[in-house]
Amino acid sequence: MSTSRGVTMHDHASGHIDLARLRDVLDGPWAKVRNAHREHLDERFLPVYGETGDQARERISRLLTELPVELGIASAFPTEYGGSSDVGGSIIASEMLAQVDLSLMVKAGVQWGLFGGAVQALGTQRHHDVYLRDIISGTIFGCFAMTETGHGSDVQQLRTTCTYDPQTQTFDLHTPHEAARKDYIGNAARDGRMAVVFAQLITNGQRHGVHAWLVPIRDAQGNPLPGVTIGDAGPKAGLLGVDNGRLSFDHVQVPRDMLLDRYGQVAEDGTYSSPIENDSRRFFTMLGTLVRGRVSVGGAASAATKSALTIAVRYGDIRRQFDTPGADREVLINDYLAHQRKLLPALATTYALHFAQTELVAALNEVQGGDGPVDEHRQRELESRAAGLKAAQTWHATRTIQMCREACGGAGYLAENRLPSLKADTDVFTTFEGDNTVLLQLVAKGLLTGFRDEFGSLDGWGRASFVVEQVREMVLERTAARSLIERLVSAVPGRDEEVAVTDRGWQLKVFEDRERHLLDGAVRRLRGGAATKKDRPFDIFNDVQDHVLAVAAAHIDRVTLEAFVAGIADTADPAVQALLSRVCDLYALSVIEANKGWFLEHGRLTPARSKAITGVVNGLLKELRPHMRTLVDGFAIPDTWLHCAILREEPRRQETMSAHDAAGDRQVVRA
Amino acid sequence: MSTSRGVTMHDHASGHIDLARLRDVLDGPWAKVRNAHREHLDERFLPVYGETGDQARERISRLLTELPVELGIASAFPTEYGGSSDVGGSIIASEMLAQVDLSLMVKAGVQWGLFGGAVQALGTQRHHDVYLRDIISGTIFGCFAMTETGHGSDVQQLRTTCTYDPQTQTFDLHTPHEAARKDYIGNAARDGRMAVVFAQLITNGQRHGVHAWLVPIRDAQGNPLPGVTIGDAGPKAGLLGVDNGRLSFDHVQVPRDMLLDRYGQVAEDGTYSSPIENDSRRFFTMLGTLVRGRVSVGGAASAATKSALTIAVRYGDIRRQFDTPGADREVLINDYLAHQRKLLPALATTYALHFAQTELVAALNEVQGGDGPVDEHRQRELESRAAGLKAAQTWHATRTIQMCREACGGAGYLAENRLPSLKADTDVFTTFEGDNTVLLQLVAKGLLTGFRDEFGSLDGWGRASFVVEQVREMVLERTAARSLIERLVSAVPGRDEEVAVTDRGWQLKVFEDRERHLLDGAVRRLRGGAATKKDRPFDIFNDVQDHVLAVAAAHIDRVTLEAFVAGIADTADPAVQALLSRVCDLYALSVIEANKGWFLEHGRLTPARSKAITGVVNGLLKELRPHMRTLVDGFAIPDTWLHCAILREEPRRQETMSAHDAAGDRQVVRA
Repeated sequence: MSTSRGVTMHDHASGHIDLARLRDVLDGPWAKVRNAHREHLDERFLPVYGETGDQARERISRLLTELPVELGIASAFPTEYGGSSDVGGSIIASEMLAQVDLSLMVKAGVQWGLFGGAVQALGTQRHHDVYLRDIISGTIFGCFAMTETGHGSDVQQLRTTCTYDPQTQTFDLHTPHEAARKDYIGNAARDGRMAVVFAQLITNGQRHGVHAWLVPIRDAQGNPLPGVTIGDAGPKAGLLGVDNGRLSFDHVQVPRDMLLDRYGQVAEDGTYSSPIENDSRRFFTMLGTLVRGRVSVGGAASAATKSALTIAVRYGDIRRQFDTPGADREVLINDYLAHQRKLLPALATTYALHFAQTELVAALNEVQGGDGPVDEHRQRELESRAAGLKAAQTWHATRTIQMCREACGGAGYLAENRLPSLKADTDVFTTFEGDNTVLLQLVAKGLLTGFRDEFGSLDGWGRASFVVEQVREMVLERTAARSLIERLVSAVPGRDEEVAVTDRGWQLKVFEDRERHLLDGAVRRLRGGAATKKDRPFDIFNDVQDHVLAVAAAHIDRVTLEAFVAGIADTADPAVQALLSRVCDLYALSVIEANKGWFLEHGRLTPARSKAITGVVNGLLKELRPHMRTLVDGFAIPDTWLHCAILREEPRRQETMSAHDAAGDRQVVRA
Repeated sequence: MSTSRGVTMHDHASGHIDLARLRDVLDGPWAKVRNAHREHLDERFLPVYGETGDQARERISRLLTELPVELGIASAFPTEYGGSSDVGGSIIASEMLAQVDLSLMVKAGVQWGLFGGAVQALGTQRHHDVYLRDIISGTIFGCFAMTETGHGSDVQQLRTTCTYDPQTQTFDLHTPHEAARKDYIGNAARDGRMAVVFAQLITNGQRHGVHAWLVPIRDAQGNPLPGVTIGDAGPKAGLLGVDNGRLSFDHVQVPRDMLLDRYGQVAEDGTYSSPIENDSRRFFTMLGTLVRGRVSVGGAASAATKSALTIAVRYGDIRRQFDTPGADREVLINDYLAHQRKLLPALATTYALHFAQTELVAALNEVQGGDGPVDEHRQRELESRAAGLKAAQTWHATRTIQMCREACGGAGYLAENRLPSLKADTDVFTTFEGDNTVLLQLVAKGLLTGFRDEFGSLDGWGRASFVVEQVREMVLERTAARSLIERLVSAVPGRDEEVAVTDRGWQLKVFEDRERHLLDGAVRRLRGGAATKKDRPFDIFNDVQDHVLAVAAAHIDRVTLEAFVAGIADTADPAVQALLSRVCDLYALSVIEANKGWFLEHGRLTPARSKAITGVVNGLLKELRPHMRTLVDGFAIPDTWLHCAILREEPRRQETMSAHDAAGDRQVVRA
């Protein structure tokens, strides 16, 4: 199979690609949402370079209320309140918004995703009836006040308290010390009228864990309400248009019915009740409804990555580095192997992650969009995947946008060429909505326990023994195109050496094997540690933390490759399919090349085969060179949205240089 | 040897370190310059967070003229004009300035390093007598106008022309088209009164290659002079205090004596003469005098890296991530293996690069500070090392500051915690004063030709055949502690498996072997290519570009390790020496671990030994954990200079949290 396939693909890949068909494949099921954004978001919504923080905040607040209705930005909300119950569409919308302006995307995410989403998911009908319409219309701006200064990741151990008093039938919301101050809260510094505040619920002298209240924080004139102290997080690396701030509460009285009480109720007399008995389980059920935030951030990171790659690839196709008098053709910077080594594997990974994200959004839409009860195992797998792909996409964005900035040289450092704001705005993504390293631990924990533990539990260390007990033999679960992938894997002959490294089945098998072997090793080491380090529970995990993180990374790589393979199988146009298949080869072999130390250590690659992969990757770069522009054009980012001076100037500049090469006495020869 | 050494080191490393002695070692020969800066640069000189571009430019311009005389910022200039002929001291001064404010450092570098340095190095006494004092005092601000919009790296092919007319005895300076516009020029947008402009000299109808002129660009009121068009590069990712701009010249008349004529003279009648016949050779001799710029940028990048690591390590020593109820001690984020894996190898690399940079500055000082004729081979080796260490330090800065920002979570994204400006300000360093990838090619070319080609020649591709002819068998040259290193290497027994991976001789041998093998392979492949691709000269080089870059990287790694080893040998205090030795182990083994794929492919490591290295690295992290704080304190950065809110707040916050753990019913146990 591999041979015939290899030849066919090669032929197609060098053939003509119908860009519209490639775009259709990438646009996927929510193409309508994407196109509505492309059509209705004009120059007015683009970032303004060099503005002050105050100007940016003012502009973004205003634009938030001026977003065209056609976008369906609040589409995740129920139809009866003005949404369209389209969870997937709302994620895609935020991805598109991210390509226009990341401050706008984050501000929208705070307002409708986090704040509005929490009111919807954690509140009940009386909250929905009173507030949802005003939240959707932007009449009430609000905050999602979870994170505290003292602890970022450990949200289960928040220090803010909210204590019920049956006498007054109110809650007393209080910040006991500075470390309990709510921090980095979007919409807090300038615009927020209300906040969903997370705090420890105490009633009748009993703690019931973290719950959420809807709390007014400013009056109509914008002044903080009594007992509420509002601070400004001040200038940030990026996202200047988002007004992050700090909130403290000095015994603020909150009416009983402002508890968002879907998962926990307090009666007039202070009696607590909940459909979920266990505090921790309830907390993670509450958090689970917020998985959309992570999916959005991952998608936004990839959207920004696509913008950066589009700029760098297009610039590399018009920019020369040196005169090359002896060359048989005009040499552009994209012609250099080293430049291709930077841009093309990153582009291939962006494609791979695109398919993984598309699949994730579809799964989220199915799990959360349905009316029936949610399958708990599926929900946890979804949360794990959202966490893993958020980490993968945001780290990939940080690395790739940085690389694109460098690939554009000094021009990449100028604000007018967009890359500085893409870099600065996305930079926080690796640590917000869950720190990436912590998220990878969650992924690993899910794999180690087969998703039997409460997934969201963020510590991963505190109850090491509990986890170690749960560790069991691994069965790899597939999320994409199960039967196709199993067929490809099982078609690989026993002896690897006989199979081409471009054989898809072999690539899949190698990814799978790495994950399984790492996971088995982690299980063995954790069990060994549990037996010998009983008095040092922290060390049981900590001594293998690097190994545990490697398990998660290998898992995400496999999920991503499988999604890419499934996406290619779903592609009808043969030329597009063939091109994607070469891109997939490059993705798979880049990952193997990057991890070749591991494969060699574990006898999965011979030295000869490992060296051969470097040659095959270089060959793929040559083969894909003519398609670089097509591949970024496939992202279908409107020229206006790129908002990049070097691309606007280039046609003119190029013309000038070809027409009159003033200092050079030599003729540049075009291929 | 390895065993006894290993044990001794271990004992010392866990012993008490006298911080003052560690600081003495790191401060090195220019300790006086470092201390003058620490003493005289107060809060006034620190960055202001959140200011506008205009505010930053105004402030930095003002501060530049207010720098305390004690710093000796213009010390590189000859004593007769107010300097102290201390080239090394001027590099160290700019490194210290970089730790205070990178805009200030770059602006000072433009004024005294590039602009003033060019007048001094390329001009002759009449230029020195008229201008140097005003340049040193900041009475005349000036630009270094080399880079053009159309071509960044290819400075030998500048498009600006300067044509001599014997009738008027003036030059006609002209920008023939937009691609020839001078771009990214510091001091141009706001402050520059004059510029050293690089252009193609034409006289009597003959071209003589690139020369430099001292050209007034603004009048006393700050208005552009006739024929000079000045543009503003606008907002940038960072370095807001530096006024980068664009210069175009429309037949500007430049008096004959404004040619900086040390390396090329034009007589009244237009006759050209030069002490260096060959145009290209002359050009690179001129450029060679500017090597200081690269050395400064490398040092500044490392200075900023040290600030970022100091912030991240100190924050990691007070910050907890999760409550760890079962733990036998209070767990801080620096206790996590994954956190140590991020911070400690980066810290070890920073140490290694510090010693390499110190050695480079000393060599520069010797080569350029002396009165005698410069040894050409030595000059080229120095230029190569400056290029390589500039690339290594600036990429390390970009990666490490990014990592430190992430290691501080959301706090790392706030301007008040310094990391955003460290990241944004240093970001351009990887592509200015020579794009890093281009610089690595230069390093490789020097190695391939034994520094026999004009080193500075920036293309590397254009005359491939020329280079290929020059390629010869490699003799490794050592820059540091030659006899010590040769002794260590030759003491390693023949069979690697018998030697501990912490044996210094083995580490040195492995680094050397990698460089040699890569270089031999590159030579072989280039020769093979030259034989078979005669009609495609570009492809001869381009097909092995990744290999050529790997040669350069391996070379820089070896030079760095050897400098570290030499620095340790020069350390008198045994406890400090032992600690540095462990840090050096971590550096060497991190590099080997990062390249283990190569070592395994080439049979330099067995799979078992490769796996063992991972374990040894993890062991070193544990061993160095108690010294993390000491290692950053060794950099001796004044607290004020860190200018970081989380460090100022932390003692108070920590106290609060220990004293009253409001939400936790558990007691945190201190180790």
